[in-house]
Amino acid sequence: MRVDELDTPVPVIDLDRVEHNLAKMQAYCDLHGLKLRPHIKTHKLPAFARRQLELGAVGITCQKIGEARVMAEAGCADILLTYPVVGATKVAPLAEVAARTRLTVALDNAVALETVARAAHLAGTEIGVLVEFDSGDGRCGVQSADEALELARRAHGNGPLAFRGFMTYPHGPRTAPFLAAARPLFEAAGIPVETVSIGGTPGCWDAHLVEGATELRVGTYIYHDRATVGAGVAAPEDCALHVHATVVSRPTATRAVIDAGSKTLSSDRVAAAVGEGYGHILEYPDAVITRLNEEHGVVDLSDCDTRPAIGERIRILPNHVCVVSNLHDAVVVGRNGTVVDTWPVAARGCTR
Amino acid sequence: MRVDELDTPVPVIDLDRVEHNLAKMQAYCDLHGLKLRPHIKTHKLPAFARRQLELGAVGITCQKIGEARVMAEAGCADILLTYPVVGATKVAPLAEVAARTRLTVALDNAVALETVARAAHLAGTEIGVLVEFDSGDGRCGVQSADEALELARRAHGNGPLAFRGFMTYPHGPRTAPFLAAARPLFEAAGIPVETVSIGGTPGCWDAHLVEGATELRVGTYIYHDRATVGAGVAAPEDCALHVHATVVSRPTATRAVIDAGSKTLSSDRVAAAVGEGYGHILEYPDAVITRLNEEHGVVDLSDCDTRPAIGERIRILPNHVCVVSNLHDAVVVGRNGTVVDTWPVAARGCTR
Repeated sequence: MRVDELDTPVPVIDLDRVEHNLAKMQAYCDLHGLKLRPHIKTHKLPAFARRQLELGAVGITCQKIGEARVMAEAGCADILLTYPVVGATKVAPLAEVAARTRLTVALDNAVALETVARAAHLAGTEIGVLVEFDSGDGRCGVQSADEALELARRAHGNGPLAFRGFMTYPHGPRTAPFLAAARPLFEAAGIPVETVSIGGTPGCWDAHLVEGATELRVGTYIYHDRATVGAGVAAPEDCALHVHATVVSRPTATRAVIDAGSKTLSSDRVAAAVGEGYGHILEYPDAVITRLNEEHGVVDLSDCDTRPAIGERIRILPNHVCVVSNLHDAVVVGRNGTVVDTWPVAARGCTR
Repeated sequence: MRVDELDTPVPVIDLDRVEHNLAKMQAYCDLHGLKLRPHIKTHKLPAFARRQLELGAVGITCQKIGEARVMAEAGCADILLTYPVVGATKVAPLAEVAARTRLTVALDNAVALETVARAAHLAGTEIGVLVEFDSGDGRCGVQSADEALELARRAHGNGPLAFRGFMTYPHGPRTAPFLAAARPLFEAAGIPVETVSIGGTPGCWDAHLVEGATELRVGTYIYHDRATVGAGVAAPEDCALHVHATVVSRPTATRAVIDAGSKTLSSDRVAAAVGEGYGHILEYPDAVITRLNEEHGVVDLSDCDTRPAIGERIRILPNHVCVVSNLHDAVVVGRNGTVVDTWPVAARGCTR
């Protein structure tokens, strides 16, 4: 079957473009002596995680324990969880993953450290710890090298915990100053820093410029999207996932309605400099998806020379591909416009 | 188990509040002689659809064929699909639903009408048609009574199609003018208008003021959310679904990070007049969820007198509850703070 005969809306992934994107990132990391640890939150597919490992990734990155469980069951033997797991309810699930795989958890506080320590005890196995630092993003992360040292001291030599280094996301302007401040402190304390893990697709091609970084975590690079193209790190022809949709109504001369709304594309926007609306329609680049309801996309055709008819199929480059993957129970994978298979998105909805 | 012992993030539904909301809307419709046809897109749960029918709903409303399939299999015998189904790929799935239930489809164009006619032929059963008109929302719908008549003529007496009336969403200022213009046209053409279906929770308590309306479609009223409370149609104590989350990081004095991001809450916003941010935290009403990443919610605590500790649990009233339901494979239902059951969201992800 041709991909353009599929029922819509449907996310369709081009396997050749995926392979190109994976190989290019691995080659970049190899060239610069960086370890690559892909973030699977973008695809949530065991088959692609295994392919990333085959191509040379040292392990994978997951955001939630549920994702890690799916990937450990799929055979991923080295997992970094870049999320502070906190509280009693997390101990048993984390221990379960730790028993199956070499696990490292990034964290920025003592409560998370205690949670991880309890899981390690329960599993009877070592769990690695990276201390997350805030390099300018203003999300998680310790604010100073002193705070990092205090946490590292609690992890270093603490029973089954193993302090392994630092993590930040995305690597921002305070990465180098933090590392410069931390090095002498950690040296003086006799705590080795094995790993400095940085991440984020928008800054991926500058990763080799971050002095001291040992590892790159990237997720979106597998598919790319309107945001990463807009950030200048990918070309439109690198984009591997498009949502195929159908024009279901043309109420006025300048308005179309498509069968892809926020339950298909998400409500994520892109920076104003990148573009307007909720996705880029390949066939009508001057059209703007001005509004999404749950199942409707409202398209302004005012600036289009030609305009689609009811029943016409279009392809949409999503603003943010990671949240699109997560909305769909399954994705279609294809090659040269032909359907190869349909894959369940195995780690979809793993928010815990 | 208590609901506040559940692993987070997790959507928790209060069954007593659901029952209150369902009964109140049914009583309102009964009082005013309106038929109630709840939209199941909000909950996507067969158990609640059946309860809505038990309380007196004449049938249910679905947005996509996949939702209708799930609900027909669950025993819903009368389904209105308020979506223009268009194209060859829709014929067989629509026929499958039509063979199981009394089906009506709303549409605003001849291509959709032809699709529905083919499905009716294939199923060998009647499918009802409502013509959707635009009453001011600027999404789908014919723009004039003349257009409506043209479509109705094609449906009326067209083999297994049965023209049943009009539908609009939400009922806006052009509802009355449209109906006033349409009545004489349809009378002159000898085409009876059995149903005038209006909808939308924000305008629900004014539905009885819409002259000529016979049927009310509402979805959000089952749970309510920050948007419907903000619209003044529900009180905070009517809200039946909250996302329970945990504070996982406190990087600075004024910042908390919670384990609920856009994959848990969605990126849907509310009108500026209703409030800032991505949800309302019950325990910290002055806190603002300023930013969501996929699994992180960043909370500004600047205006809070007291501030949560790491590990503390909070409850979030979502901005838009319909998209929250759709993000989760399962929801927890409870009563008086105690877990009653966990239900799979059976029609989750049914975008086709």
